[in-house]
Amino acid sequence: MPNPTAAMLVIGDEILSGRTRDSNMHHLANELTRVGIDLKEVRVVGDEADQIVAAVQALSGAFDHVFTSGGIGPTHDDITADCVAQAFDRHIDVRDDARKLLTEAYTARGVEVTEARLRMARIPDDAALIENPVSTAPGFTVENVHVMAGVPAVFEAMVASVLPKLTGGTPLLSQTWRVMQPEGDIAGPLRALAEEYDDLSFGSYPFSLNGVFGANVVVRGTDGGRLDAAMVKLQEVFPSA
Amino acid sequence: MPNPTAAMLVIGDEILSGRTRDSNMHHLANELTRVGIDLKEVRVVGDEADQIVAAVQALSGAFDHVFTSGGIGPTHDDITADCVAQAFDRHIDVRDDARKLLTEAYTARGVEVTEARLRMARIPDDAALIENPVSTAPGFTVENVHVMAGVPAVFEAMVASVLPKLTGGTPLLSQTWRVMQPEGDIAGPLRALAEEYDDLSFGSYPFSLNGVFGANVVVRGTDGGRLDAAMVKLQEVFPSA
Repeated sequence: MPNPTAAMLVIGDEILSGRTRDSNMHHLANELTRVGIDLKEVRVVGDEADQIVAAVQALSGAFDHVFTSGGIGPTHDDITADCVAQAFDRHIDVRDDARKLLTEAYTARGVEVTEARLRMARIPDDAALIENPVSTAPGFTVENVHVMAGVPAVFEAMVASVLPKLTGGTPLLSQTWRVMQPEGDIAGPLRALAEEYDDLSFGSYPFSLNGVFGANVVVRGTDGGRLDAAMVKLQEVFPSA
Repeated sequence: MPNPTAAMLVIGDEILSGRTRDSNMHHLANELTRVGIDLKEVRVVGDEADQIVAAVQALSGAFDHVFTSGGIGPTHDDITADCVAQAFDRHIDVRDDARKLLTEAYTARGVEVTEARLRMARIPDDAALIENPVSTAPGFTVENVHVMAGVPAVFEAMVASVLPKLTGGTPLLSQTWRVMQPEGDIAGPLRALAEEYDDLSFGSYPFSLNGVFGANVVVRGTDGGRLDAAMVKLQEVFPSA
């Protein structure tokens, strides 16, 4: 059975302007690989409702899961929750269960429950809450879309909350072999290997080290036995430097 | 007149699997902001022809410029050039001008011109070459799509080659002043300056150097005269160490 597929939607003007360097994509990519869900596409869009709604609809229809990051904070430019509700034509308002979570946490910390903070309790009807062990304000899941915060520590905690609930496929295994020859020299033999082991994928990632050109060849697949066999062959074709 | 718009398309399985952390998006975002082109969307897709072709067509139709990174090397998984040709229904083959560039550079370095290396001279008809001062193999521009390498040093050099040829909006200017005082000490006077020059933006980027705290203050704006005036004031308020 093929692995489930996923897309990520990163939301925020600050990424597109270069002000902030996104790190959530790299984190999610690694976590999904670990549990056997294939990340097939990432989109980054700004804080514009039309773009967010269109991207949620397109990605939700094309992939098994969609993970969003960003735009669920307390300020006026945090419009992700409303856009996701609109994408699925769901009603959205401050919801009692989320309000209770926030009120209890803020009261315990002696923090005032302002109207701005209560924006973070706006949850679409019938959405399931995603736990936020870092700062309480929850994410949520509507249909196949998992809506999470952009702050890396919170995003990572929410990913850890939501992933165990999803049905993963077969984990992708990978092995790497470092070849100290220029990529142009190894391309021919590598293509022949990739054709022989056509159930595996062969990636070649060139580097230059102290003026010497080389490439890391990464072989990926779900069958450990086939992977081992391909690595033996690879090491015969390109003996270690 | 509004600024021109742009999208970026990052191509490569290694980004989606988490093996490689993309840095080209952050670089391009900053460069476009500098020249007054608004980056509106980024997509990351794998080495799959259908996805690449569809993304090129969608982004090329929706934005003034599209910048791609990745998939133009010598190996079998480098399919970007062919996909871009397909997206615009253009013929593609090894082109004489690109072959000449590569042959001369390789010959000068005593490197063999293999069939694999010549893949990097595959250029769609009527595309304009993008100079690659790092490793010769060129990028190219077809219609409004600028096709560049994924290796960061090469990507950045190609961006530097192509950006001056595009019509930008109003360039964003910036000047930096290094203040050898802890950020907490400069925050008050800096805020007063930011309020006085409210058409400029003031960023403070703290650092610690050999145990001494300081901050780089970056002032940004589109009016060079105002920027100069603000810098004079800034240097009065925070004299050089």
